[in-house]
Amino acid sequence: MRKTPLAAPLGIGLIGTGFMGRAHALAFRNVSAAFELPVQLRLSALADADSTRAEQCAQAWGFDRSHGDWQQLIDDPHVQIVAITTPNHLHYPMAMAAIAAGKAVYCEKPLAVSLEQATEMYRSAKAAGVVTQVGYNYQHNPMIGLARDMIEAGELGEIISFQGEFSEDFMGDPASPWSWRCEAGHAGGALADLGSHLLAMARHLLGDVEAVCADSNTVHRQRPATSGSRELRPIAVDDQTHALLRFASGARGTFSSSWLKHGYKNHLSFEISGTKGTLAFDQERLNELRLYRPGATGRDGFQTLLAGPSLPGYAAFCPAPGHQLGYNELKALEVHALIQAVCGQGQRGPDFEEAWQIERLAAAIRLSAREQRWVGSGEI
Amino acid sequence: MRKTPLAAPLGIGLIGTGFMGRAHALAFRNVSAAFELPVQLRLSALADADSTRAEQCAQAWGFDRSHGDWQQLIDDPHVQIVAITTPNHLHYPMAMAAIAAGKAVYCEKPLAVSLEQATEMYRSAKAAGVVTQVGYNYQHNPMIGLARDMIEAGELGEIISFQGEFSEDFMGDPASPWSWRCEAGHAGGALADLGSHLLAMARHLLGDVEAVCADSNTVHRQRPATSGSRELRPIAVDDQTHALLRFASGARGTFSSSWLKHGYKNHLSFEISGTKGTLAFDQERLNELRLYRPGATGRDGFQTLLAGPSLPGYAAFCPAPGHQLGYNELKALEVHALIQAVCGQGQRGPDFEEAWQIERLAAAIRLSAREQRWVGSGEI
Amino acid sequence: MRKTPLAAPLGIGLIGTGFMGRAHALAFRNVSAAFELPVQLRLSALADADSTRAEQCAQAWGFDRSHGDWQQLIDDPHVQIVAITTPNHLHYPMAMAAIAAGKAVYCEKPLAVSLEQATEMYRSAKAAGVVTQVGYNYQHNPMIGLARDMIEAGELGEIISFQGEFSEDFMGDPASPWSWRCEAGHAGGALADLGSHLLAMARHLLGDVEAVCADSNTVHRQRPATSGSRELRPIAVDDQTHALLRFASGARGTFSSSWLKHGYKNHLSFEISGTKGTLAFDQERLNELRLYRPGATGRDGFQTLLAGPSLPGYAAFCPAPGHQLGYNELKALEVHALIQAVCGQGQRGPDFEEAWQIERLAAAIRLSAREQRWVGSGEI
Amino acid sequence: MRKTPLAAPLGIGLIGTGFMGRAHALAFRNVSAAFELPVQLRLSALADADSTRAEQCAQAWGFDRSHGDWQQLIDDPHVQIVAITTPNHLHYPMAMAAIAAGKAVYCEKPLAVSLEQATEMYRSAKAAGVVTQVGYNYQHNPMIGLARDMIEAGELGEIISFQGEFSEDFMGDPASPWSWRCEAGHAGGALADLGSHLLAMARHLLGDVEAVCADSNTVHRQRPATSGSRELRPIAVDDQTHALLRFASGARGTFSSSWLKHGYKNHLSFEISGTKGTLAFDQERLNELRLYRPGATGRDGFQTLLAGPSLPGYAAFCPAPGHQLGYNELKALEVHALIQAVCGQGQRGPDFEEAWQIERLAAAIRLSAREQRWVGSGEI
Repeated sequence: MRKTPLAAPLGIGLIGTGFMGRAHALAFRNVSAAFELPVQLRLSALADADSTRAEQCAQAWGFDRSHGDWQQLIDDPHVQIVAITTPNHLHYPMAMAAIAAGKAVYCEKPLAVSLEQATEMYRSAKAAGVVTQVGYNYQHNPMIGLARDMIEAGELGEIISFQGEFSEDFMGDPASPWSWRCEAGHAGGALADLGSHLLAMARHLLGDVEAVCADSNTVHRQRPATSGSRELRPIAVDDQTHALLRFASGARGTFSSSWLKHGYKNHLSFEISGTKGTLAFDQERLNELRLYRPGATGRDGFQTLLAGPSLPGYAAFCPAPGHQLGYNELKALEVHALIQAVCGQGQRGPDFEEAWQIERLAAAIRLSAREQRWVGSGEI
Repeated sequence: MRKTPLAAPLGIGLIGTGFMGRAHALAFRNVSAAFELPVQLRLSALADADSTRAEQCAQAWGFDRSHGDWQQLIDDPHVQIVAITTPNHLHYPMAMAAIAAGKAVYCEKPLAVSLEQATEMYRSAKAAGVVTQVGYNYQHNPMIGLARDMIEAGELGEIISFQGEFSEDFMGDPASPWSWRCEAGHAGGALADLGSHLLAMARHLLGDVEAVCADSNTVHRQRPATSGSRELRPIAVDDQTHALLRFASGARGTFSSSWLKHGYKNHLSFEISGTKGTLAFDQERLNELRLYRPGATGRDGFQTLLAGPSLPGYAAFCPAPGHQLGYNELKALEVHALIQAVCGQGQRGPDFEEAWQIERLAAAIRLSAREQRWVGSGEI
Repeated sequence: MRKTPLAAPLGIGLIGTGFMGRAHALAFRNVSAAFELPVQLRLSALADADSTRAEQCAQAWGFDRSHGDWQQLIDDPHVQIVAITTPNHLHYPMAMAAIAAGKAVYCEKPLAVSLEQATEMYRSAKAAGVVTQVGYNYQHNPMIGLARDMIEAGELGEIISFQGEFSEDFMGDPASPWSWRCEAGHAGGALADLGSHLLAMARHLLGDVEAVCADSNTVHRQRPATSGSRELRPIAVDDQTHALLRFASGARGTFSSSWLKHGYKNHLSFEISGTKGTLAFDQERLNELRLYRPGATGRDGFQTLLAGPSLPGYAAFCPAPGHQLGYNELKALEVHALIQAVCGQGQRGPDFEEAWQIERLAAAIRLSAREQRWVGSGEI
Repeated sequence: MRKTPLAAPLGIGLIGTGFMGRAHALAFRNVSAAFELPVQLRLSALADADSTRAEQCAQAWGFDRSHGDWQQLIDDPHVQIVAITTPNHLHYPMAMAAIAAGKAVYCEKPLAVSLEQATEMYRSAKAAGVVTQVGYNYQHNPMIGLARDMIEAGELGEIISFQGEFSEDFMGDPASPWSWRCEAGHAGGALADLGSHLLAMARHLLGDVEAVCADSNTVHRQRPATSGSRELRPIAVDDQTHALLRFASGARGTFSSSWLKHGYKNHLSFEISGTKGTLAFDQERLNELRLYRPGATGRDGFQTLLAGPSLPGYAAFCPAPGHQLGYNELKALEVHALIQAVCGQGQRGPDFEEAWQIERLAAAIRLSAREQRWVGSGEI
């Protein structure tokens, strides 16, 4: 409460009113109360193709105005940051338009529906000099920040292995119908939908992956066109992808991504082991981290660390350990990183370049699975 | 998005800018975006004895105006709901003034610093016909709602036992200094500070307690006046209280409350067992519930249920299981219950009468501990 | 393998061929291979009222001979240690006869079916100077030994609280029939059957209890005479007992014992907290101990310790951590303690005096529950 | 106790007196008391190159006689079953001699130190018609039996994924010295030492693996010749191996094996997922199995199943759930399977042919890692 924020408020323009649109709205609303921001935020405009819904949500969520056409939102002079929460295939045109308008872009993951699009988006943003950020929100968890700090500080020694898995079961029932998530052209499939989060996390914590060898398959090769429908549509995207990873650092490991794995609801999990210890995390218990360091105590065993206010991102929301952050607060922490980047205080979240690297890695995995061979990162 | 909300917005007046003040502000900000409310909310006024801080927080948190004097906030015609987040000894004068002004009162727990005050507050509110709610926020957790529904539906059969514990360790270090929490006159001590939450939970889930037998003790009988100070102050409040409980329903059980128990940060936990099953909960994993029902499956074992969108309070914030609510969302759910009560849609949260019952139960526990005997609820 | 064992083998006489009889047989068979004993063991005689069964089991389990009459076994000159695994009401006559014959007695818990019997047994054994041991086998777990060592070494500071529970669910179904366990005269009821183990553990770890306040009740007041029978028998023993405990050391705590608590199969569990840390144990994961010590590491959180060969009792059976002891090896460790006591190497297991103290404590709990008041240990 | 066992006792000859030798001795001693065997067992002979030690152990463990030369034990007419617990490079000559003598062979894993040896051993045993069994003891766990039954009964639907890991940390310290386990010629390395157990388990549960792609590396390329020594020896065997697996059934998955992974002591673990559910197991909690089946109950979540007496292998040792088997009882269950096989009651444990298949699979993994490509099972 000490510093004077910048005079002009920063105008937020949000495209999309689905679950993720609302999550962004909640995050933008929360961040001002939780943090002392360098600038005032203003929820300037909300766009949805359904202009009635756009207006209703704008009122409910506290936006000044609404647009039925997203291009109008981008052109709106009150808007300095364009937040994109629409289906994946719209990321490219919206982000490109926002970049062209010289606005900061905050885009949901995955960056695009093809590596070509992703490449163009990252290059355009770089050329235009606009701030960008992509919604790999899980890495804004303060416990992930702690994990990264511990790794960088060498608390685990030299990192030698990574076991990562992102599994859910929302497509586990063969009667779960077709959706755009089942279309490769919409960045569908378990690898793009879930696995990309795990690739982002692996890069965030351990850096570049230099080679991959992958195996993908589609278990349920057709699904009802709609829930309960007799019409069946063929499915070509992966239900599950497994891979071996080799990091540039020398660490080796495994990668699994599935949307068929019964019992798992948000199982973005990993174990990272080094010459001096092991760390384990599971998004289904996002306020915890399991740590083992031999010789660190008189007694030997995995410790369960609980998130607490020694981590600034946690302290912004809760005064004491054990209170726990929720999913929406990870999103608010992501928005906080965005605001800091826009205000020139450094880029903490993944920008379009990093998101493009994640897409390159996913493309290498796809090539490897297709050709059943190891693929080096230089091949993509 | 279907119904038209009432024309006039409901004005919120918040007293206090500490951690709990901010938690209320976040909750009021979130609830409009998360729920379709029957009325529009307006953050009308924020009061703090430090008027500069009041104004800064008002701006940061989106309140229309600030007051340095809480009485002004209560008198403010824009304010229909008075939210009280000040130290415990101020609950009584503020709530009594708000009741006198005919306003709805949303007061943090515990209701008051004496049973006499609590009794007067509940009676005055009842006589004035104002809506009241007290901040026993943990019971707004959708998983607690699920537990209550399961118990009421008889899924556990007749309830026969309760083991409850609320332990933390924030006073575990004897060098942790004196604070107002160490004064009986400010509703200090482990029983009032933590135990009251557990009593609220026990009553919420299992109804009236008809007799108690308790044992309280003070382990660290003096503490530094301030952190690091050589001046020691005598401590008379309980560091830990253990009790036996007999519920009117016939269930029996144990109660433990401590602020010295190393390793626990928010361990509001219970196991409830009936003739047909057992339920277990721990606030440190607030999105989970452990359930055992013999014969319910072909296989036998405790199940770990994860919060998911089949629970409306969860669905308001997260679209899929495994995403997880945080502490602040429990607070937003509490505010949602408050708004519904104010709009005549039923009282789900504990009102002043229920909070008074909780105080009566705590008083019975204190009497029992003092006289080292069983105390019936009728004795208080 | 260095020392020469004593020339004459020690003859074991085992009474009873039920589950516990076989557990003793397995334990006696295992202990020679696992430990370098000060004396050779010889499985000399096995007694069962059914002499055919006695002989069959003697052959299968490797005993030299069998008896249909237990008095013959006690009189058998080949027998130096009499192991009693019969129903509780037979402990008294058998142990008294063995004491009279000057033999060491190894008796299953509880010591007797009345405090009077227990008192006489302990006094007679003391007067006769025979070695005795009672089968509170859970305390022979090396992890319990570790817990005791940590407590004695002050690793947890001054102990301030104990939360103990021994719950199972084998009587949870109201259709579970009457058995001798339902008769007070046979030391039936949850307190005697299960709770006595917990009292033994509490004393083993924290010493004398100086006062108790208890609450017992019978939930299912009649049960079928036999499985499926229409004949119902009245049940008067406790289905569950809860209590407050005050230890002579000043520690306070709770005690729960139930055989109705669905989901628990062998939930002999406790949490012990001191001014410097907390320990938690659950017999359902007998190779683990949970430990929290603030400041012991750079990182803060409960540690899960795994049993390993740094504990001699573990090393006797497994060369590396993670391999795990089972229930029968706790029994073998108990037998090892017995053999050491018989060979004059010190009494580690509970003798008749300690078992009598456990019975006194159970009697105090019963008196307290009956009279609904605190009972001091001096009253019994 | 009903059937009359065969008249002539079956003579056991055990070679080796190390940890595994003692584990065999304990197992043979236990199995007669735990099971009603079709034949009486006799601990006939124990061999160790150190004849003094052989004699001491023979006495302590209850063997009739000892030999300083293993060939004498094989030739001993009292011996019908030859149990081999010596270092890996001795498995071949001992097993071949026992086969030549027409005796049943019970050999510790891995079968041999080369695929050529393994092939010859399996073929010779087959030609000679002798019963063989190899000590992949973990699969004798009743919980693994339950898992296999559930998979075979289709409770998990069609199996689609396998994530398996066997990690320990006993070589995690770079100062851990060289041992024969570090020599490829002695079947050293993480894959042979630990991974082979996981391959055995994968085959036991899911059948043939038809292709693998693997990645192996040596992290610590030299180690002290002995503990604390300055002399360093080069290490060429794998510290960790990761692989992709394709099962003949169509299931896909990952495999990890490491002896460097800090915090893990016996982490033989897997998750198996099918179209109708998921099963998870970890040897560090060998009495538990985690199960998820959607729709199987009114409530949704992973269940933790506890081993109990509905599983015959468990009932042989413990009368009630929650008591728990230990490592040595898995060994006793393995011996039980062996005795049944020798008595013509069917082969439940892995014989030399199955062990040879496991060696073939390990060889495919080594070839894949060396050539950095997928290897089909037909290539070996």
